[in-house]
Amino acid sequence: MSSQAPADAAVPAESAAAQTLPDRTQAPADAAAPQGEVSKNAAKKAAKLAKLAQDKADKKAGNAANKGIGKQEAKKPASKAPKKKIDGAALIGIDVSKEEDFPSWYQQVLTKGDMLDYYDVSGCFILKPASYSIWEEIQNWFNGYIKKMGVKNCSFPLFVSEDVLQREKDHIEGFAAEVAWVTHAGSTPLEKKIAIRPTSETVMYPYYAKWIRSHRDLPLKLNQWNSVVRWEFKHPQPFLRTREFLWQEGHTAHLTQDAAHEEVMQILDLYARIYEELLAVPVVKGQKTEKEKFAGGLYTTTVEGYIPATGRGIQGGTSHGLGQNFSKMFGITVEDPSAKGDEKKPPIHVWQNSWGLSTRTLGVMVMIHSDNRGLVLPPRVAENQTVIVPVGITAKTSDEERSKLYAEIERLVSVLQDAGVRAISDLREGYSPGWKFNEWELRGVPLRIEFGPGEMAGGFVTAARRDIPGKDGKAPIQIADLATAVPALLETIQKDLYNRADNEYRSHRKLITNWDDFTPALNDKNVCIIPHCLTEECEDQIKDMSARKAEEDSGEAQDARAPSMGAKSLCIPFDQPEGIVPGETKCCNPKCTRPAEKWCMFGRSY
Amino acid sequence: MSSQAPADAAVPAESAAAQTLPDRTQAPADAAAPQGEVSKNAAKKAAKLAKLAQDKADKKAGNAANKGIGKQEAKKPASKAPKKKIDGAALIGIDVSKEEDFPSWYQQVLTKGDMLDYYDVSGCFILKPASYSIWEEIQNWFNGYIKKMGVKNCSFPLFVSEDVLQREKDHIEGFAAEVAWVTHAGSTPLEKKIAIRPTSETVMYPYYAKWIRSHRDLPLKLNQWNSVVRWEFKHPQPFLRTREFLWQEGHTAHLTQDAAHEEVMQILDLYARIYEELLAVPVVKGQKTEKEKFAGGLYTTTVEGYIPATGRGIQGGTSHGLGQNFSKMFGITVEDPSAKGDEKKPPIHVWQNSWGLSTRTLGVMVMIHSDNRGLVLPPRVAENQTVIVPVGITAKTSDEERSKLYAEIERLVSVLQDAGVRAISDLREGYSPGWKFNEWELRGVPLRIEFGPGEMAGGFVTAARRDIPGKDGKAPIQIADLATAVPALLETIQKDLYNRADNEYRSHRKLITNWDDFTPALNDKNVCIIPHCLTEECEDQIKDMSARKAEEDSGEAQDARAPSMGAKSLCIPFDQPEGIVPGETKCCNPKCTRPAEKWCMFGRSY
Ligand SMILES: [Zn+2]
Ligand SMILES: [Zn+2]
Repeated sequence: MSSQAPADAAVPAESAAAQTLPDRTQAPADAAAPQGEVSKNAAKKAAKLAKLAQDKADKKAGNAANKGIGKQEAKKPASKAPKKKIDGAALIGIDVSKEEDFPSWYQQVLTKGDMLDYYDVSGCFILKPASYSIWEEIQNWFNGYIKKMGVKNCSFPLFVSEDVLQREKDHIEGFAAEVAWVTHAGSTPLEKKIAIRPTSETVMYPYYAKWIRSHRDLPLKLNQWNSVVRWEFKHPQPFLRTREFLWQEGHTAHLTQDAAHEEVMQILDLYARIYEELLAVPVVKGQKTEKEKFAGGLYTTTVEGYIPATGRGIQGGTSHGLGQNFSKMFGITVEDPSAKGDEKKPPIHVWQNSWGLSTRTLGVMVMIHSDNRGLVLPPRVAENQTVIVPVGITAKTSDEERSKLYAEIERLVSVLQDAGVRAISDLREGYSPGWKFNEWELRGVPLRIEFGPGEMAGGFVTAARRDIPGKDGKAPIQIADLATAVPALLETIQKDLYNRADNEYRSHRKLITNWDDFTPALNDKNVCIIPHCLTEECEDQIKDMSARKAEEDSGEAQDARAPSMGAKSLCIPFDQPEGIVPGETKCCNPKCTRPAEKWCMFGRSY
Repeated sequence: MSSQAPADAAVPAESAAAQTLPDRTQAPADAAAPQGEVSKNAAKKAAKLAKLAQDKADKKAGNAANKGIGKQEAKKPASKAPKKKIDGAALIGIDVSKEEDFPSWYQQVLTKGDMLDYYDVSGCFILKPASYSIWEEIQNWFNGYIKKMGVKNCSFPLFVSEDVLQREKDHIEGFAAEVAWVTHAGSTPLEKKIAIRPTSETVMYPYYAKWIRSHRDLPLKLNQWNSVVRWEFKHPQPFLRTREFLWQEGHTAHLTQDAAHEEVMQILDLYARIYEELLAVPVVKGQKTEKEKFAGGLYTTTVEGYIPATGRGIQGGTSHGLGQNFSKMFGITVEDPSAKGDEKKPPIHVWQNSWGLSTRTLGVMVMIHSDNRGLVLPPRVAENQTVIVPVGITAKTSDEERSKLYAEIERLVSVLQDAGVRAISDLREGYSPGWKFNEWELRGVPLRIEFGPGEMAGGFVTAARRDIPGKDGKAPIQIADLATAVPALLETIQKDLYNRADNEYRSHRKLITNWDDFTPALNDKNVCIIPHCLTEECEDQIKDMSARKAEEDSGEAQDARAPSMGAKSLCIPFDQPEGIVPGETKCCNPKCTRPAEKWCMFGRSY
């Protein structure tokens, strides 16, 4: 699957509507009171099970042996006012709305959608299989491309000695306050405290100096998939701000600046494609300003996303040209290969890059696509792409009829799996179809397939898209077409998710030349592209002014959870609008007298 | 490829010997003095390059900015006597022999073979791509099988709170002295110190208690690929004893003891197959004694390997039946599903397993197969399975002839790659064929293919097996047969490596019933299978007696690097010899009066 699929890929919803489509998605809400489609006994049993599970959970929450476990979320009142409950929300479902209480909604979508759990060490989270499998998809995809580029995976240690960590001053300054220090082994104090890597530049580069002995050893291209630790004291947020996080970090060394730059851009393209093709998330490619670039490097390129619900920008992944800063600090040099015979030329300091993409990707994906029914997963990365649920079984259904139906469902699962679809069935007894619909919606399965006696008799299935709840997303698919129609429909869903998010982002990127429009645009959940002088001083002013202005407008102090709501620069987009006349166009900041250098994208951000 | 390949897979070495086979492997040793097959200029240039590289390395070793980097190995005199040098060892080659100084040999094979480098935090090592890619092969293979078993990958945090870590007393006792503690973030002391996981039982099981609410949630089967930290104070050894190491840890919960046990055995089988089929390393499957089992668990199954050079056993991977110990400690229960109606039955504590396999696998593989020329890698896991090296180019060779030769080599690489072989060419200028042979032997590439004007004219290539140095391992392969003969030959190499190691191991597993034969057998580099009572007290006696006896025999104290050379029990092999008559056969320990329960394998070990 690829987001470049033809625009007119078959959409069964529009092409076949002969059969009656029962809207089984209506009000299947309360897990404790299953709908009428199962026998009363089954309904009772389900209610009892749900009650037992809840009792047990309650009991465990009070279990002294597991004190504190899973309680991190409970300690965190997201807002002072009582949460706005969604009407008719299921016991297992999301009970706050994305529009009214985004932080609580996000937390619930992740935990109830089985992506993640809170952990008893604050700022650390458990990635459950539903999220980790998406990370594995990203790993496989990215590994395929970087291996073709000659990048090799490896593993460097978790620990850094204090000496080495502090070698590059500019670089370490950005991390110093957040470094976790190991001081004891058992009850024995270590001779010297040892840091846990916050990133691996200083871990790796002393060895690059040792290994790179000749220009023949270049380029050296290593990558590792690992976790790093940055002990932030700001409020943690799953995937977005965590004290330990998973990522990949690539570190390469090149003979020439051109070769290094070419790679920076290739990697940035791959990052953009991970967002756009795998996660259905649009991004803007650009370069960071001097103020926002990676400390110690020469320049930073970035992919910047956008969260419509909050109107905030979010950095998606960065590919840094480090220049020769680190190679000078660590003495990574080669003889100049252009030297002839016994000619003396000074040694060349290698040109280095580093680039990283983290599990933050997963948070961005969830924030953009998911809704008040729970997760919405893009088909390309969903662990389960479709689930077949039996429907229409009543007290009158004979055991034989049920067996036949179930056997046919298993056959359809095989047909789909043979067609490359990650398909499962849900034949659990004791749960109503409505309850199951709810659960699979919560978990974000892109396509639900309903199959009952009516479908069986008619030789079709009823497909229901997760991204379009209710009748509009439902359509029959002939069983004979299943192996082609379902992959095509998944492709369509992937494309539609991307297009919807892309339209949102495009309509919220405002080209602004008049400062008076700037803060109101931010307040309307936009990011702003303005003519800018690219100086740090001016960025600081814009941040202050846009923060103060917001307070004046709203008449109250900023939300405690977003301590600095001033706008910062997100990137200088590579795709520059027209209109800046060099030397003539002024910087958009009215307090700034400098000419504008580029269109620069500013926004409130994560 | 699989080790179950037919025994008579084509061995070209025996089937075709019409062409003259130049023995280009003879004395290609000195990198600074390439052999006569390249022009004198090229030879001079190679010598100069080697000199430059050495000078640079020497200079860097003294570079204050990288103080301590790569010096860990140098600080470690492996023995008091000067090392026995191998005659004619290359500058880049191994300069001690496996037979004379095994620890130094092991270190050199790993570092010069580009598998690993020493790191400036003692006990931590860098896994370079040559070793990490083997770990990736193991990951892919194992993931394929466990996913079919319903195991899902996930990620739990690196950190554990002190409370949770110390929940299970027996369990933590085994790790307490080795736990690394984080006490500060930046310069801020943490409220409570936090441990880095030495293993994840206590990290994960509080959440199992939270997540498992009904028997419908069973089995729960999670696995993670991560690193753990055990701050050992014993002398570190790459892959075998390291303070941080990579592994996978599976943690599962089951409703019944039978279901749990079945999985323990399935996983153990997979571990055995990783050793035998991927790494060509024979292992003995069995159960650990009470003394040696995993603390806190019910029983431990294991695959035990053997290092011929030292005669020591080595634990390869363990699959633990944890019983209900942890589920009782952490309160992991479900209602009994056999309870009918309103019948009250006590809740069931789940049955748990944990199982782990680490990068120790790589160390065992290297110790067994490699030789005094360097690494010998089994084809199934080698990053590069074959390298084509141009030969026979002299000062008289025209540019056109050389171009044609090189073009044909690139074509042959493509042919091999299309046949699924990981093939590369080595067309570097300035290095003699001998120098290249040396380097690829050092790196363990299973099959070298030599290709020169003679081969080109004759329509064949000359294949040289890494596992059989010299003329015996050389044979021509017709170019027309390349795509089938090379995969078959790689298969043969894989099988031969396994068979050689298996014969070694079999001939060094001694069935012993007379105690007087026990320590002499150990001294002859055997492991001993003896009738044993399986008590801890008796094991302790055997350890003492076999250590003391060795000292008396040799007249000197044990090597400082092997502080306790007494034998310990390795496992109770599942494959039990005959001969123990219950109640009659006595335990082999003469100081023990108990009857023998089982044949038990003892040995000096890692
Ligand atoms: Zn300005
Ligand atoms: Zn005994």
